[in-house]
Amino acid sequence: MSDITSPTDPYIVVSSDTHAGLNCEEYRPYLDSSLHEEFDQYVAERHEHRRIAEEINADFIAEWEGDNAEGLKGAYDPDIRDKTLDADGISGEVIFADGDAVTGQESPPFGAGLAAGQITDPKKAFGGARAHNRWLEEFCATNPARRAGVALVPITHGVEESVKEIEALAGKPGIKGIMVPTMWHGFPAYGSGHYDKVWAACAEAGLVVHTHSGEADFESYGDNVAMYIREVPFWTHRILWQLLFSGKFDQFPELKYAVVECGSFWVGDILWKADVNFGASNKIKKMGSRMKGLISRLPSEYFGTNVFIGASTMSKEEIRRRQVNGIDALMWGTDYPHPEGSWPNTKERLENDFRDVSIEDTRRLLGLNAIDCYDLDVAGLTEVANRIGPTPESLHQDPNLRTPDNAQRDARWWLDEYGCKMQY
Amino acid sequence: MSDITSPTDPYIVVSSDTHAGLNCEEYRPYLDSSLHEEFDQYVAERHEHRRIAEEINADFIAEWEGDNAEGLKGAYDPDIRDKTLDADGISGEVIFADGDAVTGQESPPFGAGLAAGQITDPKKAFGGARAHNRWLEEFCATNPARRAGVALVPITHGVEESVKEIEALAGKPGIKGIMVPTMWHGFPAYGSGHYDKVWAACAEAGLVVHTHSGEADFESYGDNVAMYIREVPFWTHRILWQLLFSGKFDQFPELKYAVVECGSFWVGDILWKADVNFGASNKIKKMGSRMKGLISRLPSEYFGTNVFIGASTMSKEEIRRRQVNGIDALMWGTDYPHPEGSWPNTKERLENDFRDVSIEDTRRLLGLNAIDCYDLDVAGLTEVANRIGPTPESLHQDPNLRTPDNAQRDARWWLDEYGCKMQY
Repeated sequence: MSDITSPTDPYIVVSSDTHAGLNCEEYRPYLDSSLHEEFDQYVAERHEHRRIAEEINADFIAEWEGDNAEGLKGAYDPDIRDKTLDADGISGEVIFADGDAVTGQESPPFGAGLAAGQITDPKKAFGGARAHNRWLEEFCATNPARRAGVALVPITHGVEESVKEIEALAGKPGIKGIMVPTMWHGFPAYGSGHYDKVWAACAEAGLVVHTHSGEADFESYGDNVAMYIREVPFWTHRILWQLLFSGKFDQFPELKYAVVECGSFWVGDILWKADVNFGASNKIKKMGSRMKGLISRLPSEYFGTNVFIGASTMSKEEIRRRQVNGIDALMWGTDYPHPEGSWPNTKERLENDFRDVSIEDTRRLLGLNAIDCYDLDVAGLTEVANRIGPTPESLHQDPNLRTPDNAQRDARWWLDEYGCKMQY
Repeated sequence: MSDITSPTDPYIVVSSDTHAGLNCEEYRPYLDSSLHEEFDQYVAERHEHRRIAEEINADFIAEWEGDNAEGLKGAYDPDIRDKTLDADGISGEVIFADGDAVTGQESPPFGAGLAAGQITDPKKAFGGARAHNRWLEEFCATNPARRAGVALVPITHGVEESVKEIEALAGKPGIKGIMVPTMWHGFPAYGSGHYDKVWAACAEAGLVVHTHSGEADFESYGDNVAMYIREVPFWTHRILWQLLFSGKFDQFPELKYAVVECGSFWVGDILWKADVNFGASNKIKKMGSRMKGLISRLPSEYFGTNVFIGASTMSKEEIRRRQVNGIDALMWGTDYPHPEGSWPNTKERLENDFRDVSIEDTRRLLGLNAIDCYDLDVAGLTEVANRIGPTPESLHQDPNLRTPDNAQRDARWWLDEYGCKMQY
């Protein structure tokens, strides 16, 4: 890696949030034949889902699919995908399931992707996940330097079976992580000891554990979409605090977790509160000894080593808050090929949003943090970036703008204001 | 009301968060005799709870109760309470149940106060609530100018019965609001239509609806107190968004809601996100028409009219964020007689925290917003404040410091950055 302040090197942009998947019916050959009958019914339901989506939102669907017909095929076609990433300036990507966020046609069998927590039958949960994983392995192997695939493991439905799947995934070219169901529903919470073998297996295999936005407490919203939007970040990053506060990153120091597509605006305030609770609280005197021994560092100190934030297309405000939220933990992403992301206008988006950011901060947010988190192929990515990456010049950046020393430490104002120091 | 910038008028400090209650066994005469048998068992459980608390946290309990023996009796003795408030500089107060937050001895029958959501038997839920309400009416009537009592209504256990209780509470001297269970558990969510008669009755009676921190998703934490602390604000203010996004404040324009003792640090970011969703979102194009017609104003515009924040002993950072979070909605509070609050050192706390705040902002946070929210007796409170209230001088404030015009509007940066304007 050359100097991260270089004003001439193109940016290695790694999108920490992309999606891929076959059209639902095409998962059939990847699915255990014992599930084919249930699968036919699932496919029929998916098509009915599209019909309803078209009824509600016809204009938007027609426009989106019409304008982006070719690029949308990149959800499953590796050649089209590479060309589409090139045109968008993206060198590498972290790939989640569910290519089609508009009408849900590219969902793994039984909704084993972003909706995994909704499956109640363990056989379907594991069967659907494995079908996607088998396809994903092939897909990522087409260009492992660019693709970091996130496999599906429905850990709530069985720890032993999950561990086997994780061990089978270890070392597969281009497979860099697993996604677990966002919510644990009636199963043990993720911070309990119940899943320790899963975390151990992921740490051992070097697979990053993920939750990705999608699920929430649907029952409480009826059809009120504003309630869903309001709560979905909470449900998505809930596991982070379960893992952190239960000491999983002390118990498994190599364990990494990334929360994806639920923004980053919430990070700083939670770190403030949590650091104070462990490092400076008089407030919880009445809690007595109950904070002792849970974790060994201040909560913020796990960020950038064990905890990463797949922040997707960050808002300008989130870019401004990059130091307090974690310049060593935040990973930008396009959400390709979903319409709520920056594709196919990523270059314009970057030019607009990163103008006032230092080159070194930009390198971290756009790629270096993801390279660290997923241990990506720097040489392979550099080769791509040299060909298609945006440059500091193309982002209209000031080459003389430097990040002050200790910028992150200083942005975390509570450390000094409360005199935070690990107390327990 | 004289000029709110007056550098000489004492502050009318209204604590928007205090607690009161009888020692548990003394609720007996207020409880329907049909529940006396269950009550004996409850009292025995409470005493066992204290025994366990003493086992875990002996030193803190001995110190807290030893140092504050007299003031703690103010939980149920009105004369001692008035003297204690006087010494702390507090003119008025908004009173919730559960005087004893350390060992839980001053809890209404069956835990019908802060733990109301944990009761599964409707008879106990209403019986316990009514016992406390009967006592609270007497207690508040001892000095209705100073005391705004918040009665208990377990709305999840029956809408008709709740409406009757609310109608019975209407107009009682010193009764200014009701507290509902924080969580709805298996019952319909608060944003559904199920409780509309309750909201209508509260709007009609001029009673402010509250949730107060206490309950959370205990099952998911095991004995991990850090997880509880992390999540309890979410669970406490969850109802706010249920009411707001389901249009209850449009349906019942006189309805007021206040969320108490879960801080205010979270307000600004949620308002940013929500205002953008309703006022400027391209992101939710794919949601199509699903945002339309839910509410009539931007979410932030309900704050200070329908929505108030009982922010208790605000941190310095929360005081710095007062404009973005809502200078017209935030209400300071002592949490007397709980140890996590500012009592018995409120004067020192105010001197320390409000030094750099303008006099007008201080007046709003410390009292005027609460006076607006609860329609309190200004003349009666002014009389008390003239006797015992802190002054701008005692808080070491600069009499020339003025709040800029439009400070709140300007602090809500997203309104201009996104060009927010109600879209639906």
